[in-house]
This record gives sequence, structure tokens and C-alpha cells, in this order.
Amino acid sequence: MSILVVGSIALDSVETPFGKVKEVLGGSAVYFSTAASFFTDINMVAVVGSDFPQEHVDFLTSRNIDIRGLQREKGSTFRWEGKYGFELNEAHTLDTRLNVFEGFNPTIPREYRDSEYVFLANIDPELQLDVLKQVKNPKLVACDTMNFWIEKKPSELKKTIENVDILIINEAEAREFACEPNLVKAAKALLSAGPDTLIIKRGEYGALLFTDSSIFSAPAYPLEDIFDPTGAGDTFAGGFVGYLANINNLEQRYFSQAVVFGSVMASFNVEDFSLNRMKNLTYTDIENRYRKFKKLTHFEDI
Amino acid sequence: MSILVVGSIALDSVETPFGKVKEVLGGSAVYFSTAASFFTDINMVAVVGSDFPQEHVDFLTSRNIDIRGLQREKGSTFRWEGKYGFELNEAHTLDTRLNVFEGFNPTIPREYRDSEYVFLANIDPELQLDVLKQVKNPKLVACDTMNFWIEKKPSELKKTIENVDILIINEAEAREFACEPNLVKAAKALLSAGPDTLIIKRGEYGALLFTDSSIFSAPAYPLEDIFDPTGAGDTFAGGFVGYLANINNLEQRYFSQAVVFGSVMASFNVEDFSLNRMKNLTYTDIENRYRKFKKLTHFEDI
Repeated sequence: MSILVVGSIALDSVETPFGKVKEVLGGSAVYFSTAASFFTDINMVAVVGSDFPQEHVDFLTSRNIDIRGLQREKGSTFRWEGKYGFELNEAHTLDTRLNVFEGFNPTIPREYRDSEYVFLANIDPELQLDVLKQVKNPKLVACDTMNFWIEKKPSELKKTIENVDILIINEAEAREFACEPNLVKAAKALLSAGPDTLIIKRGEYGALLFTDSSIFSAPAYPLEDIFDPTGAGDTFAGGFVGYLANINNLEQRYFSQAVVFGSVMASFNVEDFSLNRMKNLTYTDIENRYRKFKKLTHFEDI
Repeated sequence: MSILVVGSIALDSVETPFGKVKEVLGGSAVYFSTAASFFTDINMVAVVGSDFPQEHVDFLTSRNIDIRGLQREKGSTFRWEGKYGFELNEAHTLDTRLNVFEGFNPTIPREYRDSEYVFLANIDPELQLDVLKQVKNPKLVACDTMNFWIEKKPSELKKTIENVDILIINEAEAREFACEPNLVKAAKALLSAGPDTLIIKRGEYGALLFTDSSIFSAPAYPLEDIFDPTGAGDTFAGGFVGYLANINNLEQRYFSQAVVFGSVMASFNVEDFSLNRMKNLTYTDIENRYRKFKKLTHFEDI
């Protein structure tokens, strides 16, 4: 099944203790789509400026990502500049220039409207809701958000959450959104606000999947070399939704597997800047790392 | 097999967002021994002052802990006072009075000297080494330490580490001791300094077990009510070493199970202040939670 993704495309300038890159390909829609493209077909809706390099367009089409929904506007592409310290857990934003992304008004092409899987990356919750009005009865809708929207548009965000099946959110954001320091209680509150499934991303500590009746915990893959965590969350979501859309079966056990595939994709992505690690990644690499996650977490029954 | 444990006994005053207790039973030797006593016999070496309440002695003996090695000195028992905020991850020490613990010089009773399992709780590394000189060829020696000793007695600590099989240490301490921000690299450095096995405790994020050729990751149990994290690390160690000593088999797969038993015991301990949760705990409770850990982490092969 194909996935409709709506989100950002950015040119990122990133500094980590291990190096520095300038105006490289980034953005939530790009990280999500690239990861998900290893599992299924992607229909992307996003906006770029007239300065967006053709090589990045070529990369997206090389991943078989459908870019008929890519809007090209006069002006500059969204820029983000950030820096990470040795802990690598938190990005320090140095500069954000929304540019053409500021006026982004996602129009879903007719050809995309019956996508059965939808991922609403981190954009204004009003736009997320607007996207849902344009699609025909999808089988599964997942969405991400961030502290900015929790603080600036809480009631709009709540309306969006009511209409999604899966909320994917950072640990600190889950606590903030639910106004509850205990993560299990915060998860219950968020689940009661709409979604059937909640995924809490914990960076180097992995991810938790909550439903009304179950919790599943996956670690992050312990890596010796983490070059750049930018996009790890969207890459996780890409692996997660990508696997579910490919298998097209929403039984609980596939959700747990999907969390591991999300973690696998994120673990590859942080091994290099931008989308570089994705460029030479194979599906065999992905399966091998999935098996390593199995070894990492397996223990015998008593 | 019985375990020799050498560590502290304290009267703790603790405040968390959920309550406050004054001069309750605590200390590394107590938390370790109580948890381990659900699995095997314990020989405890520690020191208390003349003010140490008989009810606490009675509690230890009710757990079948051998206290022939309990030294009673004139003066006051070790006091610790601490406070936790909502994050519950880090204790803010308000007051430490070592009292009789300052002059602690562990003498291992003759009856304890052939204990096959030894746990050196967090005490001066010179004393830890001195304990090892008093015991006869144990099958397994595990030790804990803390940032204080890493900073004040690094060379003595290194000597201790050379002589233990398992080092159990907090995440931040592992990074500090190895002078390396990447945890996998820090683990390699610590393993090359002596122990065959390294356990890195990550509080609410679980624990990692490293050997030269493997990594095992266990989550912490997601709890709705965490009242007091004091002693969680020593309780973890008690479950871990306790299970190994009971099964008396040092194959790798039992180490992974032991990490889960450690996590199980820690998850119970934080549910109440002091050792209160341990007082009505049964081995059936422990087995049931072990199975819940299995459900929490299980995902299917591909």
C-alpha cells in the first residue's frame, strides 16, 4: 500500500562534534519518505523554493518517491541550522528560516487522495487537519508534532489528535502535552485523547509503543559512531509506517515489529550526515540489523 | 550458592514529590541483600552505630540474611538525606553524615571466606580490594562504584576493577570513568580494564550488559507510580547476582536472564519508600513480573 506523507523539505546546516555540513538535504518529509521507500511506495506533498538543487529532486525520484505533490514556489527553500554537543540528544537550533515553508498550504493531488496510509509530519496542526479533509477514508493515519505546536496551538493540535490512529511524539513532548511527569500516566492521557496507538520516542534510549492494553519497549541500537542525529525521529516514523503499509496488516504483533524496523532505520540514519547513509543502504542491511535487534533484546523464558 | 556482600547500612531521610520519610532503613548492603535474599543465602558485612534500631536487625534476619559480619560500633549509624524532583532520575543529596561508616574496615568472618559469589557494593576501592584479599578464590566477583571514587581514587579503583569479573556502574559514571562520551566505546574501554562483563545502569531507561562479544539491553519496567528510586541500583545488583548465585551457572544466557531479574527487583523497590515493597513481596510476584518483561520486549522474527 502507498503512503501519503505531508511535511517539510529543508536545507540543513548541521554541526556535531564529528563534523559539519552546510545546506544539505533534510526536512521531515524527506527523512520519512526515504526511510519508508525501502518498504513501499511514497506519495510526497511538500514545498521547495526556486533554489532547490536538482540533485536532491533526482535523489528523491531515485528512491521511487512520487513527487507530483511537490510544490515549487518562488523564493528560498526552508533553512535550518543546528548544533549538537557530545550528548547528541538535543539539537540546539542556531537559525530557522521558514522561507517558502511559511506559506505552505498542502494540496493533495487527486492521484494521492486514496492513499491508504497517511503520515502527517510535524507541521501546523491546522494544516494536518486540512490534509485529512482532502483524503478518502485512509486505513491508517499517523502524525508527529513538536513542543512549538503543543505550546502555540494546543486546541488545534487536540483536534488533529482526535482524528489520527497513531501519535508519534518525543518523550519530553508527551510529558508536556499531557501535563504529567509520569510517562505511563502521560501515555494514558494521550491515548484517551484520540489515537489507538501512541509511540514515544526516547532518542538513544529507544521507543515505547502504548495501546490501551499493552506496552512494547524497543531499545535504540548501541552504536560506536553516531555522526548526526538529525532526522532520526522522522526516519524512525518512516521505517515504522513503511513496514506496516508494506505488510498491510494492523494486528498488534506487526506493530511491535514495525517499531523495531523504525529503530533499525533510525540507527542507520545517524551513522552519517543528511541522507548519506540511506544512499548505499540495502534491504539486506535492514534485515540483518533487525536480527541484531533480536539478539540485543532476547532473553529466555523461565 | 551464598553471596558475600560488603557495603553500607544507612538511615535515610528521603523526600520525593509523593511523600517524605525520616531515618528509614537504607544503604547499599541492605538493598542488595534484601533483593538477593529472594534467590539465595546472603552473608553480610557492614557497620552500624549503637543507635541502630533492633527492628531493622529483625528485618534482615527475617530475610534469612546472615549478619554475623555486622559490625556494631560506638557512635551513630551512617545518615543520608536526599530529595528527588519530578524527573526522579537524580537524587539531590542534602546531607551525608558518615558517622561510624567513616572508619569502616571490613573484616570478613571466617565462616564467610569461602563464599563463591561476592558483591562489593559502593565503598572505598581500597576496602573493596582488601575484601578480595580476605576471600578464598570466589567463582564470581561483582562490584559497584560511584563518581566520588572515580574522581578521588582513580588508580585504586582501577586496581579493584582489574580484580573483578563484573563491573556494575551508572551510565554517567561509565562515561566519566572511561573519559568517553560514546557509551559503546566507554564500555569497550572499561572491559579492557579488567572485568569480563560490564553492566551499565540507566535508571528509568533500563540496563545494558556488555561482554567482549555481545550486548544485551533490558528496559526498565514502565510504572505508573514510582514513589522512591533510592536503592534501585543496589536492588538491581541484588536481583542480578542473586539469580546467578542461585542458578550457579555462568553461561551467557543466564546473564541476560539475571539482568531481567535485576530489573524486576528494582521495579518493585521503587514502588514504595525504603524496603517497604520488599516486605510483602513473594517469589510468585517476581516470576510474574519477569513474564511481563518478556511480553514488554518480545517481537517476532522476520
